[in-house]
Amino acid sequence: VASEFDLIARYFSRPAPAGMLGVGDDCALFAPDPGMQVATSTDLLIEGRHFLAGTEPRALGHKALAVNLSDLAAMGARPRACLLGLAIPRPDEAWLEGFAEGFHALADIHGCPLIGGDTTRSDHGIAISVTVFGDVAAGQALRRDAGRPGDDLWVSGALGAAHLALELMLAGRADDARLAAVRDAMERPEPRVALGQALAGLAHAAIDISDGLLQDLGHILDASACGARLHYAALPVHEALRGLPRDRIVRAALGGGDAYELCFSAAPADRERVLEQARRAGTPVSRVGQLVPREQGVSVLDEAGKPLDALPGGFDHFRSGS
Amino acid sequence: VASEFDLIARYFSRPAPAGMLGVGDDCALFAPDPGMQVATSTDLLIEGRHFLAGTEPRALGHKALAVNLSDLAAMGARPRACLLGLAIPRPDEAWLEGFAEGFHALADIHGCPLIGGDTTRSDHGIAISVTVFGDVAAGQALRRDAGRPGDDLWVSGALGAAHLALELMLAGRADDARLAAVRDAMERPEPRVALGQALAGLAHAAIDISDGLLQDLGHILDASACGARLHYAALPVHEALRGLPRDRIVRAALGGGDAYELCFSAAPADRERVLEQARRAGTPVSRVGQLVPREQGVSVLDEAGKPLDALPGGFDHFRSGS
Repeated sequence: VASEFDLIARYFSRPAPAGMLGVGDDCALFAPDPGMQVATSTDLLIEGRHFLAGTEPRALGHKALAVNLSDLAAMGARPRACLLGLAIPRPDEAWLEGFAEGFHALADIHGCPLIGGDTTRSDHGIAISVTVFGDVAAGQALRRDAGRPGDDLWVSGALGAAHLALELMLAGRADDARLAAVRDAMERPEPRVALGQALAGLAHAAIDISDGLLQDLGHILDASACGARLHYAALPVHEALRGLPRDRIVRAALGGGDAYELCFSAAPADRERVLEQARRAGTPVSRVGQLVPREQGVSVLDEAGKPLDALPGGFDHFRSGS
Repeated sequence: VASEFDLIARYFSRPAPAGMLGVGDDCALFAPDPGMQVATSTDLLIEGRHFLAGTEPRALGHKALAVNLSDLAAMGARPRACLLGLAIPRPDEAWLEGFAEGFHALADIHGCPLIGGDTTRSDHGIAISVTVFGDVAAGQALRRDAGRPGDDLWVSGALGAAHLALELMLAGRADDARLAAVRDAMERPEPRVALGQALAGLAHAAIDISDGLLQDLGHILDASACGARLHYAALPVHEALRGLPRDRIVRAALGGGDAYELCFSAAPADRERVLEQARRAGTPVSRVGQLVPREQGVSVLDEAGKPLDALPGGFDHFRSGS
């Protein structure tokens, strides 16, 4: 007897690629190529915490996978396959169709087919769990603990756009002209998958910016036992933020979450190689500072070389209730 | 700035085994042994659907992992590692400690360390996603589509205990003497991991019984394009059900969910090998019927060889609202 949730599962069932067993057995099966390690990450997205109720389902399907692909990117791994757990209040065909389309479209771009999952009913709101698998050559993964004092610090793309979009949305400013320029950054982030792979074996430490540059950089600093010195003028602030008061720019660029850019460290001797790999990946990168000995702590210097004194503590998604 | 949820994550962080990278990076890293495939499964457990509110946290930690290990068992895979996503309304240290203890204790028994995850806040109830990884020699996995007409059908352990426990709990019969005998079957199921591995390369099709024997067997029948004939008298009914009216026994044994026993098919020529492997795994198995050509459908015969006419349709967890 097929339940309504078996029927739902069919929105997500597609033939598995050769060498894999996909949706429809107790487990999915896959194998990494010889010499490769499996990189895996899981995220649990909760309505009202990680996305607003009423988020367009196609954008949500995209984002649920994107945030996980971003973890693979931060590890330097190539996406291979994914699993989806989905709990929804009731089967709504239009919603499911949109969600599945957004999910599969991004999966197709990155060669990351859905090979298994679980769908069920939730009494309160939507919960989405995505698990991704990638592979990376043994010893080449970009680990948080691989930073060294003296490393350059780099950031991909631009900062602050998703933060500004969320600010405008929460303030009910859906008609603000700037929203058009930044809304996609919040709702349809593009994980830096090509850049991450291009940096494997070249960059030292890496992380993706989900909670804010300073907060996520903090994880590298903790794991690598380093401090950091950033240069405000070097930060790649999104152009939609130009003209805002400086304190808002600082908050958005250094504390804004949901950016899904990569922050990584690399040897100064490898500057040209980093720029060349970024060009090949089609992703701009900016050199924003250095790792320093731990006892020097964390500082952000202004154009005159003077430390900014008010730094955002990071936003930790919507978790802190802000 | 460590959030309360970073602190929570520490309940779940333990040193990763050699060759793996564990909790605390963007991804976990592991590698299957040469020639092995990775088997993986994910389940999303929602409060009020898959477990009752107020379930003892240690039992819940156990069960969240157990239902996933049961999927590995049904594939014939050896557990290797797992990921946990946990959304809870507020950090409650006693709850977290109990949940983590129950989870880790079962993980230790099966050599399935937690190597990554995600903790977050939920506004409504608890959501738990677990992803497990196992390995199985290429070509040896127990797939749902591998059954053939003429195969023996087998079931491990005993049936109906978790069903009876849930019935008594929902009826407010916590003082019923029988509950003591069956409560553990519902709250602390023991996945048939050793049996599953012992059957890899020997049994044909296999599935674990989560929604009820008839319903889960139906997935084997669909995938293998077979029918089935079961013998009522051969069903391993849990002893706590003896003495109940026959229709309740039929409902519990054939329709009762959350059993986490294995249902599998194997060639009649391999009967002795199946029994020997089950003995080695320390798990009793019962031969309950045969796979038949699809056009013969599904029947359950009583002691006189007459088909039972009322068969339960399966419970589909709590999903169907029953």
